Amino acid sequence: MATGSINVSVENIFPLIKKFLYSDHEIFLRELISNATDATLKLKHLSNIGEAKVDYGNPMIEVKVDKEKRQLHIIDQGIGMTKEEVEKYINQVAFSGAEEFLEKYKDSAKDSGIIGHFGLGFYSAFMVADKVEIITKSFKDEPAAHWTCDGSPSYTIESADKQDRGTEIILHISEDESEFLEDSKISELLTKYNKFMPVPIKFGTKTETLPKPEDAKEEDPAPTQEVDNIINNPNPAWTKQPTELEDPDYKSFYRELYPMQFEEPLFNIHLNVDYPFNLTGILYFPKLGQDMNMQKDRIQLYQNQVFVTDNVEGIVPEFLTMLRGVIDSPDIPLNVSRSYLQADGAVKKISSYITRKVADKLSSLFKNNREDFEQKWNDIKIVIEYGMLSEDKFFEKADKFALYPTVDNTYLTFEELQEKIKDTQTDKDGKTVILYASNKDEQHAYIGAAKDKGYEVLLLDSPIVSHLIQKLETSKENISFVRVDADHIDNLIKKDEEKISKLSDEEKEALKTDLEQVVPKEKYTVQLEAMDSNASPFIITQPEFMRRMKEMQQTGGGGGMFGMGGLPEMYNLIVNTNHELISQIREAKTDKKKERLIKQSLDLARLSQNLLKGEELTNFIKRSFEMIK
Amino acid sequence: MATGSINVSVENIFPLIKKFLYSDHEIFLRELISNATDATLKLKHLSNIGEAKVDYGNPMIEVKVDKEKRQLHIIDQGIGMTKEEVEKYINQVAFSGAEEFLEKYKDSAKDSGIIGHFGLGFYSAFMVADKVEIITKSFKDEPAAHWTCDGSPSYTIESADKQDRGTEIILHISEDESEFLEDSKISELLTKYNKFMPVPIKFGTKTETLPKPEDAKEEDPAPTQEVDNIINNPNPAWTKQPTELEDPDYKSFYRELYPMQFEEPLFNIHLNVDYPFNLTGILYFPKLGQDMNMQKDRIQLYQNQVFVTDNVEGIVPEFLTMLRGVIDSPDIPLNVSRSYLQADGAVKKISSYITRKVADKLSSLFKNNREDFEQKWNDIKIVIEYGMLSEDKFFEKADKFALYPTVDNTYLTFEELQEKIKDTQTDKDGKTVILYASNKDEQHAYIGAAKDKGYEVLLLDSPIVSHLIQKLETSKENISFVRVDADHIDNLIKKDEEKISKLSDEEKEALKTDLEQVVPKEKYTVQLEAMDSNASPFIITQPEFMRRMKEMQQTGGGGGMFGMGGLPEMYNLIVNTNHELISQIREAKTDKKKERLIKQSLDLARLSQNLLKGEELTNFIKRSFEMIK
Repeated sequence: MATGSINVSVENIFPLIKKFLYSDHEIFLRELISNATDATLKLKHLSNIGEAKVDYGNPMIEVKVDKEKRQLHIIDQGIGMTKEEVEKYINQVAFSGAEEFLEKYKDSAKDSGIIGHFGLGFYSAFMVADKVEIITKSFKDEPAAHWTCDGSPSYTIESADKQDRGTEIILHISEDESEFLEDSKISELLTKYNKFMPVPIKFGTKTETLPKPEDAKEEDPAPTQEVDNIINNPNPAWTKQPTELEDPDYKSFYRELYPMQFEEPLFNIHLNVDYPFNLTGILYFPKLGQDMNMQKDRIQLYQNQVFVTDNVEGIVPEFLTMLRGVIDSPDIPLNVSRSYLQADGAVKKISSYITRKVADKLSSLFKNNREDFEQKWNDIKIVIEYGMLSEDKFFEKADKFALYPTVDNTYLTFEELQEKIKDTQTDKDGKTVILYASNKDEQHAYIGAAKDKGYEVLLLDSPIVSHLIQKLETSKENISFVRVDADHIDNLIKKDEEKISKLSDEEKEALKTDLEQVVPKEKYTVQLEAMDSNASPFIITQPEFMRRMKEMQQTGGGGGMFGMGGLPEMYNLIVNTNHELISQIREAKTDKKKERLIKQSLDLARLSQNLLKGEELTNFIKRSFEMIK
Repeated sequence: MATGSINVSVENIFPLIKKFLYSDHEIFLRELISNATDATLKLKHLSNIGEAKVDYGNPMIEVKVDKEKRQLHIIDQGIGMTKEEVEKYINQVAFSGAEEFLEKYKDSAKDSGIIGHFGLGFYSAFMVADKVEIITKSFKDEPAAHWTCDGSPSYTIESADKQDRGTEIILHISEDESEFLEDSKISELLTKYNKFMPVPIKFGTKTETLPKPEDAKEEDPAPTQEVDNIINNPNPAWTKQPTELEDPDYKSFYRELYPMQFEEPLFNIHLNVDYPFNLTGILYFPKLGQDMNMQKDRIQLYQNQVFVTDNVEGIVPEFLTMLRGVIDSPDIPLNVSRSYLQADGAVKKISSYITRKVADKLSSLFKNNREDFEQKWNDIKIVIEYGMLSEDKFFEKADKFALYPTVDNTYLTFEELQEKIKDTQTDKDGKTVILYASNKDEQHAYIGAAKDKGYEVLLLDSPIVSHLIQKLETSKENISFVRVDADHIDNLIKKDEEKISKLSDEEKEALKTDLEQVVPKEKYTVQLEAMDSNASPFIITQPEFMRRMKEMQQTGGGGGMFGMGGLPEMYNLIVNTNHELISQIREAKTDKKKERLIKQSLDLARLSQNLLKGEELTNFIKRSFEMIK
């Protein structure tokens, strides 16, 4: 048996690193600015603990484009490197200086914000550059060094005469990456990845207007001056303590995050945890309305103030991806795949922490200012209802603050609702029947009938409402939901009341025969009912179960049981045998008159269910215009 | 000046490879099976060209799980390795044996289907295994070798007594990757990644029923036998020539691709190009209907029959991502990012090739069987219309076959339409006015009025129709589109006809005053028109420009010009002064009667535009029930 060691040859791996280190070439700028930031923060740390006797000052990072020479410069005023350090850190692929630094200064440097991890970031420069130079001067009293590499594994190193502390990286941008010589492109990348990094980043200058001197004349132009153009906010709101921030601060940070958003967020949730993982952030509830799909401005994920992605799927539970804001955690790996994330224990904990925080915040909003919470309900309900459906733990909490609005704009919790209706709306079998409408306009007549009986009618209009109802019916006892147009009002909540019909059984039989000759039976099942003589003579209803299954099929889930064809459109035509119009129909002298009466009544009932359309509607209108004359 | 060479140390890079080589851990199985496939295809090639004197036979790849020992085996019957080859290929990270092979057998091996590229795939085994063994016997007359590595860079190698040609990889699955010891998981991965790989892959066995022997009795059970369970189809349809395939072959391949799809595809497009890039594939047009969002089964991207992704954004133009099917190209890099793809020249060419092929196929379907094309139009139009909007080159081609259906189900090309209507529908300024409806039911009365004049009315009901109309109006000359309910029929297409009004100017003034006392002026602008006395007395219209801007705002694009608030809902109420009902209104004896007449007429006009809702509708119905009596 022989033993040996696996070998990696630079010649083989270097081309791969250049080509595939990151799938996005543009990442190189993020990586180099992260290195420059680390170099600055390391110096800050050493100066703080007294290991570097330097004037730390107000260092910044500068990015410069020299289009003519095809060069991009990244210059920092940080710790710098001696020639020996260049050889140690740069010439060794995948040797992380940051890790080494954090290891060495373990306790004190824990919160220094240093970003580096793998010692690979620097090499991303070769994804866009033919040649890379480093000119660097350490904070130590040693001469500067100048390192050059043309992308082959060989490099040169020599002394340089740089006097200022810090490191300058010069990229000689390759022919097919010329876009990285455009100011607009660099500016775009800086805004995308480095907008909130902790060291000020300068890119060019801008003109600032100064106040006029006191002795200036009216017509004198205001004086101006050129100032550094700092592209980032090194102290974004989420890095502060909640106690330092007021409501306007959160709102203005929202605008910083989403400059194209004109609507204000409804409220925010400040996340701040350091055990068992590190996570800070601010989540915002935007106005959502009914649309579950459209969503352009998404939650942004940062790692130590470096932008990583705006795809937080897997980190944030799905129902909260509708929110906006920022999450920053050094514990989320930078190069992450979705399926990897979902399996990762730390990520699972983060997801359930966020869910809990959101539930707690909603709960306290509900308790502290119910009126305000009620006003916001319609804009946030879709998130809460979706959360109740998808996360059982969230359901438990939300069950106490989720609201059920009535058609008269009273907002009740489930418990309040139950308490309010249990006396009036419990049927003869002891089941409490919750009546609801999905649209105040479309079900206007049916709502009216229910209210006349003294019943409460909820207005439940989310797209996922049938799923939520199903969930509530299975998790609560002895309740059921019925839409107001599922049957006529006496049948929706069955009480032990005897209804007296004006008609004998024979008369009913004869009436039914008459009706069925006019009413198309493939669409309507005729059902004679002895109702109040003031109730509508003809009413069209659609059974709850049928309708709900259809809706669930449409919004997905719980559906397919009836195959692909979908359920047929079937309605009941309820005829109130106690209504005066029925006597008229029964007593009509000619068949033609009888038919005309039934047809017009059926059309009116269909209008009330939004079922009269097209040619039939046109004919109805024409007929009615004639009837006016 | 000193020179040196950048160094990569195994200790540093090996942990990174293990952790970050692929973002999905599950990829390891795809990689190992790709290696096994390459080993098999290499032997095939050498035996074809006479360099290997072996009986190639019918080799397969076997995958086995030993849950108890926590081992996963991948066994091939391919070329195998000698001890020296193991040391050369395996112990050298990122040294690609496949590349070397292709280099050596450049010309003859071009189409051998060999997959490997970077020499990294094997190491992905360490993403899921603590320890990996290789037992391999070369086709050459040399003893077998046994290599073992526990994930540290050191390994052992010794001789083994394996007699059969080929390589067996044994993964000792690590504690937190136990899911890869589940049959169901392995089966899922094999189906996802290896379903169409070119060498048969065996995973377990299955029971097959044999025909009964002739002398069997009725009650005897049919005999069965255990056979290899082959999970892949090594010769999928897209690898064949179009001439070898008939329509049923394409349909059955569709079902192989999407076993959960019950609907048949409408037609397919076979892609086959080898210059300037290699690409094969089959695209299918599914029935799409109106929904642009929902789409579960997507186009799958393969590289040499290995599944890569079902996210083809960037490779296929956006409007074609609604299609289904397969694209296979060795020229698309495996580890790809979206932004990288969009910049890649080869990918751009692929995208425009696919667009062209799709346009050509549609054009030939149109020419060869117009009737069939018309029948499919409603299911495919959304793709075509979207393509016309987003790709100018596609617009040019599609303009010749895009269809415009009339409300009477006649399907016309734009040219045919123009020819057909230019005499009747050209207005007094020489502009040809194209009338359309978006819904036959909702605009029934308006369609009727237009047809009575002998006009053609198109039925344009795609969600993006206002954008398409805008595009057509700007790219064609002297035409405009107007929806049938944008004005009353005489105004939609203005001819030089004098209309004679029954009313004098004073009478008109008085009528208008009466009307405006009842009709709410914040919603309706009253407009008196002298029309045919048989036309409707009251008509509600909404101006084309307003309505179209609103629709475009809703579907995005071209919108924001009116700020966030959206446009107000404003309608015109057109009153036909020549209608008999108007005389009645003018002559009504009491103000109350006048008001009742105007109200009922207004309600009927609103019904016709679907504007009578909620309480007003309920009241209208109640009033009408009373009027029956």
